[in-house]
Amino acid sequence: MITHLAMNSHPNPQRVLVIGGGDGGVLREVVKHSTVETAILCDIDESVIRLSKKYLPGMSIGFQHPNVSVHVGDGFKFLADKTNEFDVIITDSSDPDGPAESLFEKPYFELLHGALREGGVITTQAENPWLHLPLITKLKKQCQEVFPTVEYAYTTIPTYPSGQIGFMVCCKDAQRNVKIPLRSWGVEEEEKLCRYYNHDIHRASFVLPSFARKALR
Amino acid sequence: MITHLAMNSHPNPQRVLVIGGGDGGVLREVVKHSTVETAILCDIDESVIRLSKKYLPGMSIGFQHPNVSVHVGDGFKFLADKTNEFDVIITDSSDPDGPAESLFEKPYFELLHGALREGGVITTQAENPWLHLPLITKLKKQCQEVFPTVEYAYTTIPTYPSGQIGFMVCCKDAQRNVKIPLRSWGVEEEEKLCRYYNHDIHRASFVLPSFARKALR
Repeated sequence: MITHLAMNSHPNPQRVLVIGGGDGGVLREVVKHSTVETAILCDIDESVIRLSKKYLPGMSIGFQHPNVSVHVGDGFKFLADKTNEFDVIITDSSDPDGPAESLFEKPYFELLHGALREGGVITTQAENPWLHLPLITKLKKQCQEVFPTVEYAYTTIPTYPSGQIGFMVCCKDAQRNVKIPLRSWGVEEEEKLCRYYNHDIHRASFVLPSFARKALR
Repeated sequence: MITHLAMNSHPNPQRVLVIGGGDGGVLREVVKHSTVETAILCDIDESVIRLSKKYLPGMSIGFQHPNVSVHVGDGFKFLADKTNEFDVIITDSSDPDGPAESLFEKPYFELLHGALREGGVITTQAENPWLHLPLITKLKKQCQEVFPTVEYAYTTIPTYPSGQIGFMVCCKDAQRNVKIPLRSWGVEEEEKLCRYYNHDIHRASFVLPSFARKALR
């Protein structure tokens, strides 16, 4: 979901960056989009990549695609000299409490904004409204200080606390409605490519229960 | 959700029956709809009603409404001589494995169908696609043998296994699209009345991930 929400909110995502995501799962999904010319993954921990390649072949298959390259290092440092380079940047991080804390703060979003080309889109994991509504509200405000278009979406996933996880979807283009997929596969291809995501789920994932809609208005 | 999905899929729900739901929570939601003239609750276990009144005042407040009446007894027996009586019947039961098993089988749906007036709607809890897809598929088929309109919806709820629970929504009217609420409160009233349900959530709750959409097609 974090991948296809971003990719299908862009009309023609050619250059894609993944921050984190060392297991390769996000890359695997990125390269399902035929528009992609380059997909770079930047993860701080080479052991995640190495162990995923060894033990999670279904995830790490993403590393095998010819358009993929890997950079092991700090996302902040990697982004520091990148300007106007990417159409989509996906941050597949751990939770905001702990070492990934800085990936949920304004300076990071400013770096992402700078690294995006015109009309670029970012997604980042953004916790669960049942558990973390104050955190999500704060995060949305920080994103809105940097991006003109900011929306919150969520998906069901049993292995996450309370069975859901959310995403912040931000775009440099103030006119873009990220709630509507700009590109979509046909139903048959969609179901071959993705077991969860489809273009109706894209739209529905932005529809929030009243308690969350009020807090994030 | 199980209540408002049913109530708002009916143009004018006046007579409502709740099977199970002895805690009073469904009744509390039913009487938020000003169309309701009579709401009857039939639960087999009087101790649930008694203990809810004692220990769960927020739930059991539903029993206090003047249009509500309670029948303690078996839902099957209660329905046996009811014909053409209710606009909406909500079954708020426990899981299909165990004592409530018969509430997930065709003879029960035939009784519900018979007890409904023209254009009547039923909802029943229907498990979680992540955990119980074969069961849901079978349940949908059984409902389709009795009702011309059968749709599956779900909601997020952290206290249920895997954080979601589903519902079967069935209607006697083959032309009814239960995915679209026929009546809805204004946004302000909606948010005052319900912390979760709203008319956008109504529609979105029928949008399934591809793996579930395929299985339930």
